[in-house]
Amino acid sequence: MSDGNRLNALRAAMAKEDLKAMLVTHLPDVRWLCGFTGSNAALAVTAKKAVMFTDGRYTTQAKQEVRGAQVAIAKKSAVKEACALLEQEAKHAGYDAAQTTVAALDEMRAAVSGKARRKLFVAVKKPLLAELRMLKDAGELRLMEKAAALGDQVFSAVLSHIESGVAETEIAATLEFFARSLGAEGMSFDTIVASGERSALPHGKASARRTPRNGFVTLDFGVILNGYCSDMTRTVCVGRLSSKERAAYEAVLEAQQAGIAAVKPGATCAEVDEAARSVLRKAGLAKFFTHSTGHGVGLEIHEAPRLAAGQTQELKAGMVVTVEPGIYIAGKFGIRIEDMVAVTPRGNRVLTSSTKALIEL
Amino acid sequence: MSDGNRLNALRAAMAKEDLKAMLVTHLPDVRWLCGFTGSNAALAVTAKKAVMFTDGRYTTQAKQEVRGAQVAIAKKSAVKEACALLEQEAKHAGYDAAQTTVAALDEMRAAVSGKARRKLFVAVKKPLLAELRMLKDAGELRLMEKAAALGDQVFSAVLSHIESGVAETEIAATLEFFARSLGAEGMSFDTIVASGERSALPHGKASARRTPRNGFVTLDFGVILNGYCSDMTRTVCVGRLSSKERAAYEAVLEAQQAGIAAVKPGATCAEVDEAARSVLRKAGLAKFFTHSTGHGVGLEIHEAPRLAAGQTQELKAGMVVTVEPGIYIAGKFGIRIEDMVAVTPRGNRVLTSSTKALIEL
Repeated sequence: MSDGNRLNALRAAMAKEDLKAMLVTHLPDVRWLCGFTGSNAALAVTAKKAVMFTDGRYTTQAKQEVRGAQVAIAKKSAVKEACALLEQEAKHAGYDAAQTTVAALDEMRAAVSGKARRKLFVAVKKPLLAELRMLKDAGELRLMEKAAALGDQVFSAVLSHIESGVAETEIAATLEFFARSLGAEGMSFDTIVASGERSALPHGKASARRTPRNGFVTLDFGVILNGYCSDMTRTVCVGRLSSKERAAYEAVLEAQQAGIAAVKPGATCAEVDEAARSVLRKAGLAKFFTHSTGHGVGLEIHEAPRLAAGQTQELKAGMVVTVEPGIYIAGKFGIRIEDMVAVTPRGNRVLTSSTKALIEL
Repeated sequence: MSDGNRLNALRAAMAKEDLKAMLVTHLPDVRWLCGFTGSNAALAVTAKKAVMFTDGRYTTQAKQEVRGAQVAIAKKSAVKEACALLEQEAKHAGYDAAQTTVAALDEMRAAVSGKARRKLFVAVKKPLLAELRMLKDAGELRLMEKAAALGDQVFSAVLSHIESGVAETEIAATLEFFARSLGAEGMSFDTIVASGERSALPHGKASARRTPRNGFVTLDFGVILNGYCSDMTRTVCVGRLSSKERAAYEAVLEAQQAGIAAVKPGATCAEVDEAARSVLRKAGLAKFFTHSTGHGVGLEIHEAPRLAAGQTQELKAGMVVTVEPGIYIAGKFGIRIEDMVAVTPRGNRVLTSSTKALIEL
């Protein structure tokens, strides 16, 4: 889908909600719609117009990047000038309630005349842009495959630097150096390197702690390539594991594979979650699986849909989700295995290709 | 200030606004108040109580980190359980209008009973926490000095890797590797390496472009250490510069020094901006200085105050701001020089210690 098509897809979604105009301020949404990657933007969209307001720092960059929308350099506030344009062009303009703060709404209202102040802006509660961005087009899928493949390369490169007694931060430093050297624009989130007892912290950012003589090391990291995020987790081990630890690894792997097998068009997000969770339940480990099974990923590391109990959203071809069950036994150990999975017309394609067999270092 | 004192400082600020209770959801605010570093938290504060709600992923971590507040693990939503507690404890509870989305406010309201729904939550427009966090205590200043010093070390280490013909991404990779290896928890923002004509992009993230034979290379980066962000910019050169480029560098440096000299208790933010800007005006370069002069920095990379025209906020001892004038001549070159500066009782102390003399590589 070209950028112009994306704007038209938004217009079609707006029409269904009876919206003739919309203000888009969430930066990944702006990027998805018109290609701009700067840090300040407000995009006014009407049936015929699309104007992206930014500031003087981005004059050159906006001209180079923006497709499908006019560029306007705001003298003072990009948002306020976008609001003034919307006031001229439309009776009502939607804004994304999930991406607009109460204070920002006050500012938007202050930018228009007294009459428009009360009724111009309409909260859009349906996540129009999140729903559009959930379905990746062919171009996006290619970029996400590349991002996932770069993640695999980075994982492969860092393995030889993991052994007993290495600081978690040193592993993270090496991992991020390989990521950057191999072309990543940055990391999708703070790299998690959690070893030994710390592997029982699901979100244990790399610390000064050294890897243990015997135990697990969980690496959860993502790269950003062409704006798209990768996300993968592998749990490897150093030294020797107990038979209990080995059995737990096998259970998490089986749960992860069951989760992936459940990913197909028409399945609900809750069904995928349950497919993974029920394996751990049978193994008596479900109480240690303290988070949901996965999430959408794309220009942002956490996107719709959420793979969790109660989520009735159906999977559709073009979605890209993570499948990442894990168990965390406080004071003992933790294990998580995560792949990126694209929903295809007939089932799914796993974008992460690193082995999930237990790697012993 | 210990975490308990910070909660009491918030209570004092709340009392001035006639607020008996408050919901805090912005994560850096939660961290500042009670030490929690996880990615999901809602802190309910009343005159006598402080309860931090998070989810099951953080059971262990919250117990280790949180000081001054009780920890509660929410079964479903941390925010909703915090709201339910506030409904029991108070008639009115403030929330930060600048950190609460319209959708989040709807969720907060949905979590309380019909009667409370209309009147429990009160938008706080005064940025209470931003104002408290603007003034760093002695402990924070020590941490920020350390973060700034780590930035200096990283800059010094990366210099020998900069020469003509090196990809900007390679310079960024090396810079970030040194940062990590020297102990950084991460980078404060996407590292900017902008060389040659790209140095005229104020926010030119490192690209695949190689440094030119002759020209400027702007490095703008920050490390995170103990949660606190550093932020510094240096513009170095490779090969030979024209006399015009040299003169422009001297003008930006003079502007930056004039900005720093204006930083002292009682000066307004606008006065610091004007001190830097007027130097560039005299040099005929003001039209190329397309952004404001600086910003506060701390747990977040952009905090209050803003050093910009029209900003009447007075500087006070304990604030830490950046002073970073720059000029950007599209298609030609750009130069920016940035230090972190702490306001002291009698003037200021520059926390960044790397040389600002033109470095020729």
